Amino acid sequence: MPRTVRLAVIPGDGIGPEVVEQALRALDSAIAGEDVAIERTEFSLGAARYLETGDVLTDADLTSIAGHDAILLGAVGGKPGDPRLAGANIERGLLLRLRFSLDHYVNLRPSVLYPGVASPLADPGEVDFVVVREGTEGPYVGNGGAIRVGTPAEVANEVSVNTAYGVERVVRHAFRVASARDRKKVTFVHKTNVLVFAGSLWKRTVDRIAEEFPEVSVDYLHVDAATIFLVTDPARFDVIVTDNLFGDILTDLAAAISGGIGLAASGNINPDGRYPSMFEPVHGSAPDIAGKGIADPTAAILSVALLLDHLGLPEAAGRVQRAVAADIAERAGAQRSTSEVGDAILGRIGA
Amino acid sequence: MPRTVRLAVIPGDGIGPEVVEQALRALDSAIAGEDVAIERTEFSLGAARYLETGDVLTDADLTSIAGHDAILLGAVGGKPGDPRLAGANIERGLLLRLRFSLDHYVNLRPSVLYPGVASPLADPGEVDFVVVREGTEGPYVGNGGAIRVGTPAEVANEVSVNTAYGVERVVRHAFRVASARDRKKVTFVHKTNVLVFAGSLWKRTVDRIAEEFPEVSVDYLHVDAATIFLVTDPARFDVIVTDNLFGDILTDLAAAISGGIGLAASGNINPDGRYPSMFEPVHGSAPDIAGKGIADPTAAILSVALLLDHLGLPEAAGRVQRAVAADIAERAGAQRSTSEVGDAILGRIGA
Ligand SMILES: CC(C)[C@H](C(=O)O)[C@@H](O)C(=O)O
Ligand SMILES: CC(C)[C@H](C(=O)O)[C@@H](O)C(=O)O
Repeated sequence: MPRTVRLAVIPGDGIGPEVVEQALRALDSAIAGEDVAIERTEFSLGAARYLETGDVLTDADLTSIAGHDAILLGAVGGKPGDPRLAGANIERGLLLRLRFSLDHYVNLRPSVLYPGVASPLADPGEVDFVVVREGTEGPYVGNGGAIRVGTPAEVANEVSVNTAYGVERVVRHAFRVASARDRKKVTFVHKTNVLVFAGSLWKRTVDRIAEEFPEVSVDYLHVDAATIFLVTDPARFDVIVTDNLFGDILTDLAAAISGGIGLAASGNINPDGRYPSMFEPVHGSAPDIAGKGIADPTAAILSVALLLDHLGLPEAAGRVQRAVAADIAERAGAQRSTSEVGDAILGRIGA
Repeated sequence: MPRTVRLAVIPGDGIGPEVVEQALRALDSAIAGEDVAIERTEFSLGAARYLETGDVLTDADLTSIAGHDAILLGAVGGKPGDPRLAGANIERGLLLRLRFSLDHYVNLRPSVLYPGVASPLADPGEVDFVVVREGTEGPYVGNGGAIRVGTPAEVANEVSVNTAYGVERVVRHAFRVASARDRKKVTFVHKTNVLVFAGSLWKRTVDRIAEEFPEVSVDYLHVDAATIFLVTDPARFDVIVTDNLFGDILTDLAAAISGGIGLAASGNINPDGRYPSMFEPVHGSAPDIAGKGIADPTAAILSVALLLDHLGLPEAAGRVQRAVAADIAERAGAQRSTSEVGDAILGRIGA
């Protein structure tokens, strides 16, 4: 009896379903021969569902998704400026609600500049790092508020919440990730000179956890300086650990310098295994190119590699990763359809 | 009788005094022939002063500085990791205290890629934009706090405060700046999909002020997407308006793509004129190269151009700017000392 993995699939909106289709083909191909069977449930969530039913994510959806072993998500979000979505905030109600409810405290975002990929940087050097972004705290907690809204006396506050509990677990995870990599280096990024309370908690935690990992070297950068190094010397980075908002900003920049968000995969991970982890391309639903069959499914396929790694199938993950790398090395500006890219990568997974 | 401008000069630490020396030479040269006299008072502030007296910025310092017409600051901050400075936080106690006390609600940071300057971007295109960063609100207000510090139950919060009063004045200033420029375009940057209370206040304010400036076009980017465009298509930007923290991050990235923080100037401006505005290079005190006479004074000299503009001396400002541009166009990798760069620019200001 093969082990069964129950996978919740959320194709989502726009190009989401198109790239997920190719990702699922890659997944099937990668596990051929492994002693594992994937049992999929598809969830219709996102802007389309909201427009149909008025629901973003019901408690029943959440309970059902939580009963799975892992989640693959395409992309969610409707056309920017669609008046029918004005009050919805699908991103917060769906993406963030999943991350928070399923305690995805590690948001894992690797940045690799594959050979053959164009970078906007003139001389990027070797880019191969991973950002461990905290996923359940910081300014993302939704603890803001406003008074006297719409009057000249309005005050709108946002609260960044940081706990010893939350910071310690993600920092320890980052050190574990670093310890398993060649260079074994953690760069802690924050703004400790201004956000002194959160910064102090983070800094003390990093210092303390560092002692558990004597083989890992550690340095610190202010978030503003980190953006400079990402464009002048990205090779200096191995593992970056940072808070939710800084991680959001840095990972988009990191994706941009390593070939664009079309190639960036991410894992929203609950390392404890109490809840299913969720894998998704960093890109959005790109409604402008949806339905044309031209979306690049590479980031979704690379998200499958992260999923396989998380499921304890590193060899299958490696097959996907190598197939993508080989395909990227030869694509050099070729205009291919979504399914052509899927075919090309699929052909290599078996090889 | 020429008009007298009382200028408070804060050379500061590290390379601060070296670059300020050249900036003051450029200032003197630029106003030769103008009907203005500069009366300088030097303030000894920064890490050196703190180590000597234990003071970062006394009330007496502040009162005296506030009595001037403008401020020129070099850079402040001691050696990173100096244990004697551990509890000081010079940046917050000095820089931020000045910005807040003197109501510098506009933090103006132009990014220009001068011909001849190397950018880390392979194909930067034309880079000529200015970031209008809010300077007195946001997560910089110091309204955070922590409980149970040092225990596993620690909670550390940071509060971003945004007021209709504060947002409106800086947004209106940004539109004024845009209206006076060729392209007349404002890009509002925030994270409205996550920071919904602050984001909503900012968004409504931008929409409302935009109506006062029908000649100015407006668009919006999430801060994460803005970092992508800064490296893939910086030419799309004309005027960026954003909050204190996003502005901090974006302006370092902006400086990096347009030749480095060695060339980036900034103005901390109180447009109402109730308090003196402060002009400073974006770079820090760089203790590692201090005293060697090799620091590049260009950013400090460009800060003088911003100062002259602010003082209503646009022709003198133009002379400085053109001299710097001409010098930059010919420096092409030349290794020159701080004073040699100063000499070269000075020679051109007169010309
Ligand atoms: C869509 C948005 C809420 C989300 C975030 O800010 O985390 C996105 O930018 C990301 O990085 O996954
Ligand atoms: C030194 C620091 C407090 C400051 C800031 O964060 O504003 C600096 O980074 C800047 O941009 O001027």
